[in-house]
Amino acid sequence: MSELALAAFAAESGSHVVRAPRDRAFRVFARRFDEASYLARLTEAGVEWIARSAPEFPPPLHAIHDPPPGLFVRGEAAADVLRRATVAVVGARSCSPYGAQVARMLGTELAAAGLIVVSGLARGIDGEAHRGALESGGTTVAVLGCGIDRDYPAAHRELAARIRATGLTVSEYAPGVEPAPWRFPARNRIIAGLSAATVVVEARDRSGALITADLALEEGREVFAVPGEITSALSSGTNDLLKLGASPLTASSDVLDVFGLAAAEGDPVALGSSAEKVLARLRDGPASADELARSTGLDAGALASALTELELAGCAVAGGGVYRAN
Amino acid sequence: MSELALAAFAAESGSHVVRAPRDRAFRVFARRFDEASYLARLTEAGVEWIARSAPEFPPPLHAIHDPPPGLFVRGEAAADVLRRATVAVVGARSCSPYGAQVARMLGTELAAAGLIVVSGLARGIDGEAHRGALESGGTTVAVLGCGIDRDYPAAHRELAARIRATGLTVSEYAPGVEPAPWRFPARNRIIAGLSAATVVVEARDRSGALITADLALEEGREVFAVPGEITSALSSGTNDLLKLGASPLTASSDVLDVFGLAAAEGDPVALGSSAEKVLARLRDGPASADELARSTGLDAGALASALTELELAGCAVAGGGVYRAN
Repeated sequence: MSELALAAFAAESGSHVVRAPRDRAFRVFARRFDEASYLARLTEAGVEWIARSAPEFPPPLHAIHDPPPGLFVRGEAAADVLRRATVAVVGARSCSPYGAQVARMLGTELAAAGLIVVSGLARGIDGEAHRGALESGGTTVAVLGCGIDRDYPAAHRELAARIRATGLTVSEYAPGVEPAPWRFPARNRIIAGLSAATVVVEARDRSGALITADLALEEGREVFAVPGEITSALSSGTNDLLKLGASPLTASSDVLDVFGLAAAEGDPVALGSSAEKVLARLRDGPASADELARSTGLDAGALASALTELELAGCAVAGGGVYRAN
Repeated sequence: MSELALAAFAAESGSHVVRAPRDRAFRVFARRFDEASYLARLTEAGVEWIARSAPEFPPPLHAIHDPPPGLFVRGEAAADVLRRATVAVVGARSCSPYGAQVARMLGTELAAAGLIVVSGLARGIDGEAHRGALESGGTTVAVLGCGIDRDYPAAHRELAARIRATGLTVSEYAPGVEPAPWRFPARNRIIAGLSAATVVVEARDRSGALITADLALEEGREVFAVPGEITSALSSGTNDLLKLGASPLTASSDVLDVFGLAAAEGDPVALGSSAEKVLARLRDGPASADELARSTGLDAGALASALTELELAGCAVAGGGVYRAN
């Protein structure tokens, strides 16, 4: 009995299937299933199928409690990127500017160092992690909670296309499967399962990213949480993860150490003295433009040009009316 | 040989003394030392002496590797407050608005629940912890790194007087000893030694508060660190403490649990709908007034009155040009 029949039956019946069901409906379906023509249609649609039993199936995903029957894969990267050293970067959809900045930074630095960055194509943290990896010229993989022919959310259709230009989108769901809330926790087990380490950047209490972290912990994978202010609800899930024993992540090197990798070397940035002054203040914490003018004594014009210099150099990031060191 | 002679000799020789030195200078000093008249002068100056061997000496401080010969004590509280359940709240002198807010909140809530809040009277975190404890009507103890007759820093003279009105200032150093940089690490061992738990709110790399935490860890005391943004240098020491195994503190109940105490119950606060709207946004992270106006759609007047309402209710705090939920 083919694993592809399982995936096709799951799509047709709208259910979640990882093992052959013992019911008549499935037996009837499996008897009629024409694997060769189904595969031909996939190929025509630019979709590759990697069965759970195939040698190309990623071993870490095979090792989880309930691996999917296989993965549908789309994109220009060879499917064997799924067997390379992989880190998941996940978190809140409605993230804060701080979370967005950290996710982008991690995506950039982890991919630049050679890791495959896996996430869920969601708004917020997921999207920033994918974008960071693309910016560094690295490879990123988006795991979908819907059929491989869909890009969900629609706002990330262009991002998904950019991901496929050098990387992959993957799903356990066959073409035609609609996104549904209950599929996202299932999708999260694939994100955690593909990855030797999972980083949660920002998460509210009871958020989906914490499910990914729980699954990773259950499978004995490394879990990192990014500390955040205890007055921010968006860091309450991540700070709670720290209480549960997740490793605090303060720099991408914390993850790279797990893989025995060194950070990619960037060029040292030469800054003007006003920009240095502003950066020194930002290293002590986020500040508004008003506060920066007060504490540095720079006039509005000099401050604006210092901030532009810092943003262009990647040393500072604006968000929520506040600037932060990067 | 009296322990008071050790303390008096340390003051006269400008050295740090915890055991009787084996040199001639000390033998000569001890022979001439008139304990009765020294004690009389202390009493006249409103200073009490608790020798290390006295039954009133706090047992947790006696248990450390190098307890001081005794403590000089000033203030209206009975000296036995030093034997009550005690928590240290320490951190950076040049703290951020976030750190100041958390220190004040912890001082208030821990003292309200009945703990003695110990800190070092320094600017920044220490001062905010003392002030919070005073605001709640609780008892706070300042451990000095100079003679008991001095209030250092001078900017905290009035704060020291307020602390003594209901609590204590204490020092191992006799009247006349000047503040000196090397005395502060020594002072930190007393802060950690008096306390069953030490909380580090904000700390740069290699800061004095980390010494206090190390000393507390060495003595097997509970150490908490407050998580903060990884892009803030003021949280890099605390986030590193988390990596070293300190417990993440996200609420004062984390500390109260160690002592088997419950939080003091506050009155529930009723807020107007604009204030609720602003607070909901602030719970997602700090924001400038501009950002709050944008995200809530309130006009400048309504926003200003909502912020005032939140600040008066203790639900939000302003600092660095940014507002935060409390």
